[in-house]
Amino acid sequence: MVKVGIVGGTGYTGVELLRLLAQHPEVQLQAITSRKEAGMPVSDMFPSLRGRVGLKFVEPGDAGLSSCDVVFFATPNGIAMQETRALLEAGVRVIDLAADFRIKDAALWEKWYGMQHACPDLIAEAVYGLPEINREKIKGARLIANPGCYPTAAQLGFLPLIETGLADVTHLVADCKSGVSGAGRKAEVGALFSEAADNFKAYAVPGHRHLPEIRQGLELVAGKAVNLTFVPHLTPLIRGIHATLYVRLTGAVDLQAIYEKRYANEYFVDVLPQGAHPETRSVRGSNLCRIAVHRPQGGDIAVVLSVIDNLTKGAAGQAVQNMNIMFGFTESMGLQQIPLLP
Amino acid sequence: MVKVGIVGGTGYTGVELLRLLAQHPEVQLQAITSRKEAGMPVSDMFPSLRGRVGLKFVEPGDAGLSSCDVVFFATPNGIAMQETRALLEAGVRVIDLAADFRIKDAALWEKWYGMQHACPDLIAEAVYGLPEINREKIKGARLIANPGCYPTAAQLGFLPLIETGLADVTHLVADCKSGVSGAGRKAEVGALFSEAADNFKAYAVPGHRHLPEIRQGLELVAGKAVNLTFVPHLTPLIRGIHATLYVRLTGAVDLQAIYEKRYANEYFVDVLPQGAHPETRSVRGSNLCRIAVHRPQGGDIAVVLSVIDNLTKGAAGQAVQNMNIMFGFTESMGLQQIPLLP
Amino acid sequence: MVKVGIVGGTGYTGVELLRLLAQHPEVQLQAITSRKEAGMPVSDMFPSLRGRVGLKFVEPGDAGLSSCDVVFFATPNGIAMQETRALLEAGVRVIDLAADFRIKDAALWEKWYGMQHACPDLIAEAVYGLPEINREKIKGARLIANPGCYPTAAQLGFLPLIETGLADVTHLVADCKSGVSGAGRKAEVGALFSEAADNFKAYAVPGHRHLPEIRQGLELVAGKAVNLTFVPHLTPLIRGIHATLYVRLTGAVDLQAIYEKRYANEYFVDVLPQGAHPETRSVRGSNLCRIAVHRPQGGDIAVVLSVIDNLTKGAAGQAVQNMNIMFGFTESMGLQQIPLLP
Amino acid sequence: MVKVGIVGGTGYTGVELLRLLAQHPEVQLQAITSRKEAGMPVSDMFPSLRGRVGLKFVEPGDAGLSSCDVVFFATPNGIAMQETRALLEAGVRVIDLAADFRIKDAALWEKWYGMQHACPDLIAEAVYGLPEINREKIKGARLIANPGCYPTAAQLGFLPLIETGLADVTHLVADCKSGVSGAGRKAEVGALFSEAADNFKAYAVPGHRHLPEIRQGLELVAGKAVNLTFVPHLTPLIRGIHATLYVRLTGAVDLQAIYEKRYANEYFVDVLPQGAHPETRSVRGSNLCRIAVHRPQGGDIAVVLSVIDNLTKGAAGQAVQNMNIMFGFTESMGLQQIPLLP
Repeated sequence: MVKVGIVGGTGYTGVELLRLLAQHPEVQLQAITSRKEAGMPVSDMFPSLRGRVGLKFVEPGDAGLSSCDVVFFATPNGIAMQETRALLEAGVRVIDLAADFRIKDAALWEKWYGMQHACPDLIAEAVYGLPEINREKIKGARLIANPGCYPTAAQLGFLPLIETGLADVTHLVADCKSGVSGAGRKAEVGALFSEAADNFKAYAVPGHRHLPEIRQGLELVAGKAVNLTFVPHLTPLIRGIHATLYVRLTGAVDLQAIYEKRYANEYFVDVLPQGAHPETRSVRGSNLCRIAVHRPQGGDIAVVLSVIDNLTKGAAGQAVQNMNIMFGFTESMGLQQIPLLP
Repeated sequence: MVKVGIVGGTGYTGVELLRLLAQHPEVQLQAITSRKEAGMPVSDMFPSLRGRVGLKFVEPGDAGLSSCDVVFFATPNGIAMQETRALLEAGVRVIDLAADFRIKDAALWEKWYGMQHACPDLIAEAVYGLPEINREKIKGARLIANPGCYPTAAQLGFLPLIETGLADVTHLVADCKSGVSGAGRKAEVGALFSEAADNFKAYAVPGHRHLPEIRQGLELVAGKAVNLTFVPHLTPLIRGIHATLYVRLTGAVDLQAIYEKRYANEYFVDVLPQGAHPETRSVRGSNLCRIAVHRPQGGDIAVVLSVIDNLTKGAAGQAVQNMNIMFGFTESMGLQQIPLLP
Repeated sequence: MVKVGIVGGTGYTGVELLRLLAQHPEVQLQAITSRKEAGMPVSDMFPSLRGRVGLKFVEPGDAGLSSCDVVFFATPNGIAMQETRALLEAGVRVIDLAADFRIKDAALWEKWYGMQHACPDLIAEAVYGLPEINREKIKGARLIANPGCYPTAAQLGFLPLIETGLADVTHLVADCKSGVSGAGRKAEVGALFSEAADNFKAYAVPGHRHLPEIRQGLELVAGKAVNLTFVPHLTPLIRGIHATLYVRLTGAVDLQAIYEKRYANEYFVDVLPQGAHPETRSVRGSNLCRIAVHRPQGGDIAVVLSVIDNLTKGAAGQAVQNMNIMFGFTESMGLQQIPLLP
Repeated sequence: MVKVGIVGGTGYTGVELLRLLAQHPEVQLQAITSRKEAGMPVSDMFPSLRGRVGLKFVEPGDAGLSSCDVVFFATPNGIAMQETRALLEAGVRVIDLAADFRIKDAALWEKWYGMQHACPDLIAEAVYGLPEINREKIKGARLIANPGCYPTAAQLGFLPLIETGLADVTHLVADCKSGVSGAGRKAEVGALFSEAADNFKAYAVPGHRHLPEIRQGLELVAGKAVNLTFVPHLTPLIRGIHATLYVRLTGAVDLQAIYEKRYANEYFVDVLPQGAHPETRSVRGSNLCRIAVHRPQGGDIAVVLSVIDNLTKGAAGQAVQNMNIMFGFTESMGLQQIPLLP
């Protein structure tokens, strides 16, 4: 059994981590921290967990995190980087669900996140936790930068075409749509039901923090600079991301075969049959990414459709997948929930 | 391993049965029938099941149902009664998720369902599959009438007050609200997104088929006639039933204690702490019923709030619970999914 | 032309007032105040008003309210009572959309609203602005207490049976469901999309502030104490209230005729044909209340279904209706929008 | 007063036409036809119209259409082309909300719509009813091909860049999202609430009928072939289309100025300030198109965001706008509804 601590469990990635870890056969939930809610039973805040999670929120200082085997940070950006060094030095592995260790260029991170980085040296050590790219590195990692939700859906969709050199990387478009849970469990007017329901809009078109993360991932694979236009949208669902990717092809190609081959051995990536259109609910509550690829009207543009549950494969599920790899468990352990449909 | 057949698996109770049974450690899915879709892989219709259910829909005649240990009917009303006798005679147990065997008075059934009953003698044998009332009878049953969704939520809410004789049964009110999946996966204008979203309405106020079913259940417990007003409403959620029950109390009573005692040993009934308000999402995708009980302004009216997922505890989950009891499995086997929140 | 000021226009009743008043042929919008947003063009906050409302929010002190003919308060409870006396003394009429002047018994108000009332003497003068009851008093009023949303739907539904003495007022039940806009445009976790969507729950069952308001209205008509159980619920729509009312009848009665007669001359109350079920979207964006009345199974319980748009007939629309009456305009002036369906 | 007939009024464009025409000061509604519902009062099907539309559906033969001044076809594709010639010969003007006359190349139309065209000669006469392009031709037209919903949003967004020659037309991308009412009021499983709610998906990626319509419009303006990738998506809203358009710029350009200048005199096109993101609800129930234009990260890709209400500017509202132009009324007459927000 692995002893697990969670820092900052009052948000949506926190409750999703709890849902998954409470069902994981090799996990012993040790502590979950919240300064604000210390003393409150977790199941008072999240009644879905009644009878399944007996913990109360505790002050970080009382959580005994240094005696855990692994600590998940489900905190706002900028928290994990303050506390990671001490945990690592105590022999605790760390999985950060926030963005603190995702961008390798500290200066670039500081520009996009608007704060100084507390431990640039640890960025170098951190492994970007996208198992479909970095599985081997994850196995031995002490510190995982768990990918963002948009970056997971977009990279898994783009990768096969970039790895094979078939994409014109000077003109990539990622038109992405997210459910509202991506905005977190924060009291903000824009995420109110009466604002977000029966409504659709783009946001952050001039620049979204996931742009440098996706670009970094694609450039590592491409081996050169890529030109990516990334437009996120808010759509009235709770969970789900749909990435629609537009790639100009540089040559003749059997798209379907390339995708099927690339992901043939991936438990959590499902390439749909030719002509299909994945829908977000087909992965709701699961750690799956489903992908379909099209070439409309026989033209030179490939359209890749990639869907995930932003809270699962886009956050907590992928974090558990990383934990499984780090600790030598079967990669799908505790992550075999069948999507909830309808 | 129990060999399981499903008759009529193209609706929402069908896909929910498949989701649950595919994860059940003691179940071997043998066949699922659909005249209309015979030959189609189940996962083509329900992509959530890709990689998890390999079956194709088959013609009923090709399903080998008589070699199953148990057959679930997830069919429209009036089908199961045609086929049950032959299955029972072949030694197959039957769980009917439709209404064919729910009403003990065949004439009453025929009045409400508008057709002649094909086997009134089997009605007598059938056990009403509400485990919290009929657990012992279910153990030995060959034929289970799986309760309706509204009747499950309403009866579990009313029972403690009626069993203890504290309810004035001459004036019971059940104001119930259902998600749209309760209308089934049928192409009908009234269940279209553009009709049902951002909208709320009552329906069938003059009389709904679940009225006689709830009344029968309450009268069996009360030992006398009850006067029940039942009003169902359609609310824009996918899954979930919320029953708000109004009961005039006949004497002084510690409501909270009565409910907690009644359900102390029930795995799937969760009595919330005093003052709580259960929400439908707290049971989404799970077999739980959560109940809270109030006495507003210290008056003589008890208000009972009871929530279930209409497709799980209100249909497929309860059917699997019944199967577990019938075959001597742990009652919660395969039914321990943590509700999906948010 | 009537010169109109609005105090506190950044909430949903504010933007609804603006929508209606901007289209009203006899209204000149003079000023709209917001301490927090002073200087911001109204249409920056509410892009639906671009090109239609040219005002900026102003500080209350700069609004010239005392030169208006009428001032609407679309403020939280407790604001209007601070400012009304000065306006009345300046000859300005006041319509308060909050609750400050709704409850005639100041001590009762203070108990439910948790603050001391600033001007109990003005409560006596204030006219409760439900035109279907108080039209004559509204004509000459200086100060209108605009009714709450639940109280409007519930009272219009109950009234015909109470006025005719046919209701057993010792046991009234009002089971009411509101869209989320009723919670206002406030940043609160409970009203987030990811909390309120695909979810249904009761709230405030022990006691909601609209209980004494409804009871007061019914008792005035009944001429005696009434016993009312009122349970509000939150349902995932933006706009709309559905009141389901249960009334024990004290005698034989032609329900349909009573309701049709009572509201025969009311422009904004529409009694549906026998057997109908009103839906909230049938009044979306309009000032209408639609009502149907049933007597299920020929029993002694009348079930009344009453729907309004909580922001229109339940707030801003009724306020404009009151203004029309006060200033001698046609009662429906500026309020003839056809509901938006679908 | 203009005498108006509607053919096929039982769908969503039908009820939207009725909502708009019933409030139009120069319209006299003469007849609305439906073979299937002949005899039913319109307001029985659409209770939002109670008290406002007194007509019953009539058989086409009983509608007296040839004595109307103008007839709107709110029918499935392929109906209007059967009946238009007779109406034109009777001196009646025709506005077809379906696709029968939108594509100038009859062979192309037949390929995409899968039927033979009944009157190719009338295609030549028909004027494509996008007023922002064709206002002068509309004035004198007998026959209007009212544009599709996606084509309206997409063309209005693309036009300024194509007219000015600043777009690289060899690589245009239109990623479009539609509310579910775009699927019509037809009983189809895919449009059920329980299928479409809390879900997002692309559809018809290999080829959608609006592709040739958009392309035709753009090529007319560009004066050459354009290469357009068009991907439609279904998003869980009732009304609304959001087009996200990606255009490679061929030179330096003040995007904001170009768009503001192009639409400076258009009543129904609103160019938002620099940096804005239009949301679909900001046009809900109105005939407006709101547009914002971005150049993310100072690159060579312009991102244009264009929103309309698919039933209003995308269908019935634009049809009424065309009628206003044809009959010399003020273009905005009867179309000044302020969008319903929230």
